[in-house]
Amino acid sequence: MMNLTPTLQDCELLDQQDPLRSLRSQFDLPPGVIYLDGNSLGVLPKATPARVAQAVTQEWGTDLIKSWNSAGWFTLPQRVGDKIARVIGAQAGEVVAADSTSINLYKVLSAALHIAAADQPHKKTIVSERSNFPTDLYIAEALCKERGYTLKLVEAEDIATALQGDVAVLMLTHVNYRTGAMHDMQAVTAQAHAQGALTVWDLAHSAGAVPVDLHAAQADFAVGCGYKYLNGGPGAPAFVWVNPRHTERFWQPLAGWWGHATPFEFTPDYRPAPGITRYQCGTQPILSLTALDCGLDTLLAADRLGGMAALRQKSLALTGLFMQLVRTRLHGQGFGIATPALESQRGSQVSLTRAEGAYTIVQALIARGVIGDFRAGDGGQHPDILRFGFTPLYIGYADVWNAAEQLCQVMASGEWQDARFAQKHAVT
Amino acid sequence: MMNLTPTLQDCELLDQQDPLRSLRSQFDLPPGVIYLDGNSLGVLPKATPARVAQAVTQEWGTDLIKSWNSAGWFTLPQRVGDKIARVIGAQAGEVVAADSTSINLYKVLSAALHIAAADQPHKKTIVSERSNFPTDLYIAEALCKERGYTLKLVEAEDIATALQGDVAVLMLTHVNYRTGAMHDMQAVTAQAHAQGALTVWDLAHSAGAVPVDLHAAQADFAVGCGYKYLNGGPGAPAFVWVNPRHTERFWQPLAGWWGHATPFEFTPDYRPAPGITRYQCGTQPILSLTALDCGLDTLLAADRLGGMAALRQKSLALTGLFMQLVRTRLHGQGFGIATPALESQRGSQVSLTRAEGAYTIVQALIARGVIGDFRAGDGGQHPDILRFGFTPLYIGYADVWNAAEQLCQVMASGEWQDARFAQKHAVT
Repeated sequence: MMNLTPTLQDCELLDQQDPLRSLRSQFDLPPGVIYLDGNSLGVLPKATPARVAQAVTQEWGTDLIKSWNSAGWFTLPQRVGDKIARVIGAQAGEVVAADSTSINLYKVLSAALHIAAADQPHKKTIVSERSNFPTDLYIAEALCKERGYTLKLVEAEDIATALQGDVAVLMLTHVNYRTGAMHDMQAVTAQAHAQGALTVWDLAHSAGAVPVDLHAAQADFAVGCGYKYLNGGPGAPAFVWVNPRHTERFWQPLAGWWGHATPFEFTPDYRPAPGITRYQCGTQPILSLTALDCGLDTLLAADRLGGMAALRQKSLALTGLFMQLVRTRLHGQGFGIATPALESQRGSQVSLTRAEGAYTIVQALIARGVIGDFRAGDGGQHPDILRFGFTPLYIGYADVWNAAEQLCQVMASGEWQDARFAQKHAVT
Repeated sequence: MMNLTPTLQDCELLDQQDPLRSLRSQFDLPPGVIYLDGNSLGVLPKATPARVAQAVTQEWGTDLIKSWNSAGWFTLPQRVGDKIARVIGAQAGEVVAADSTSINLYKVLSAALHIAAADQPHKKTIVSERSNFPTDLYIAEALCKERGYTLKLVEAEDIATALQGDVAVLMLTHVNYRTGAMHDMQAVTAQAHAQGALTVWDLAHSAGAVPVDLHAAQADFAVGCGYKYLNGGPGAPAFVWVNPRHTERFWQPLAGWWGHATPFEFTPDYRPAPGITRYQCGTQPILSLTALDCGLDTLLAADRLGGMAALRQKSLALTGLFMQLVRTRLHGQGFGIATPALESQRGSQVSLTRAEGAYTIVQALIARGVIGDFRAGDGGQHPDILRFGFTPLYIGYADVWNAAEQLCQVMASGEWQDARFAQKHAVT
């Protein structure tokens, strides 16, 4: 069936047969919307409003400071971290949910540089990918300036070659935010280790989106985002994992009281807590962290249906279907596909390129209720991107067909050239 | 009247005559509770639950990523910062609300060290107070190790002498978290500047509690907390201010995309935004930040009634009344008063000392609905503390009288020696 262009009826049948279909009922999806931006901001779980209201009204309003103990606020970063551990191949006690991805990256990159400096002081380079999410590059740039390192940016295909230099740390995002291309974490980590480099992985676009097994990959450090595939809500706290072989070799420079061995003894000197707790700094935003806790429950609900492996199978079917529909139904409309066709190299999104109009086409789609987003290119090797995320927890096959149909109509009608879609917003 | 021991009737009369009395109706105070811990966690404003629910259900649930523009999520750190500016003597555009106090301290202390290194490279010492809030000392300790500085800790009375050395930065908390003693920010800053040192002020226990005028003091850097006197809720984001004469001399090492001049151009190289925006790093926890926005409104509502000056007058009356009641009604019960009697040296809390039983007395009071907290001493110069915060927005004179009455009963009954009050909680 899938060799011909699938019809809406084909897709509706696939939805009926989808063993994960029941997971969608966990979410409040706005009516009339096909939301293909879960890779930017996950949707609202049905359980979240009541749980956040309870945290506001009961835990804060009534119980006040008692809630640090009675509601477990103080251990919430660890408890949420334990849930995250289950979807990234880490053990309980190895992850904390705290701060932002950028800040956690600063922590682990600082620690990685300290460990590298102790073990191989002559190595003075951090390698990353030129099209890595920019904030990761900014954080690395700042640390390189402070510590006398060089940040070397290469294209994905040149990473193996670049590792042959004096590389202390290889810092990569597992799934590329622009193209959805995915690194083979195990193979790349092995390459890095063979050259004596430590690995820092940003899982922003892979935690909850694709199976991740940090221990199997023997990765060194990882950080990730709470508000994308983990459905934690706008700006939800991020997370940090450190391989136990490194955790206690160093603390990290954001050495605040929540990372102290005995924070309530209020001693004037810093003594890092055992384990991953030392990667905490200050008090966490409990309301946002509570919402993240609910978001993770929607993901862990898939465990009884096959977990991340089953979600991955559906995710690949959804992204594959969309690519097939673009190739067949939008042939000749000027679109390229930036996302790898090979399943092993693909995350949970599909990125289209187009020489012109990418921004206004996305706006025209949004006006029709199909929400994707636009990412600007650099005018050179990296073109403008129309980005569509497919979250298997709440996106179905008919959604994919309807999204492609709307894109066909936007192109056929020429409405994407309408001036009203050209106005840029502050956040694109 | 106030030279004799005030009676409950005296206090009820003071409440009736209190021009700020109406402000209390902005809060949902739990029944049967006298909450003297607003210096740890401010109480829930009545407006907050509905506003947070709107952010969850409408902004996130329905409008999804559109809310970065339509609900102004992206500029929320600046808009909340502008409200904070009004209570700390800063101008609009000079403050952002983001991250935690510890993290913001790392940013400004890093920047201060860079500026000091450029202007006076021979100065290699940071001076702080031994009884400063420990997390501030830990952050300074970590930076000193990284940058080759020495952290010198002195008692409050020795600061002027300590400044005569090679001091690059004087880092102080304006109101001491243990004793409630307040520095004269203007005088101390002038002393530091006269010796060529920059000043970093932590306003955790003064923003919203006492009048602060950063510009009048010609302070250099300041950070502070959102969840104490600003009523932002558990773990609410903190804030950061930099004197405009320094802001653009340096960026800060947590150089994430929210501090970039053009974050949505996704350029691989970091270019700091103009002004205080460069002190942002990554995406902020919007739900917690929304609650902080509501908390600030409760404070700014005092503007029509005399603002911080009127709040300060009432705060001094409340703390003065409590000290008077302790001196008269608890005479001979072994309590000392660690908080300065002199109004110009006092924040908005009263700290009692006692050679033994401080922890269990606090627990016995909590069991009676009078919520203060305990801070452990060091077994030497700094004794155990029973800490009582008086937030003039929602605490009245009769509350103070009743709290003292309960303390009298706890001591008279001997119940504070009951074993059930001796059990320590994880968070004290």
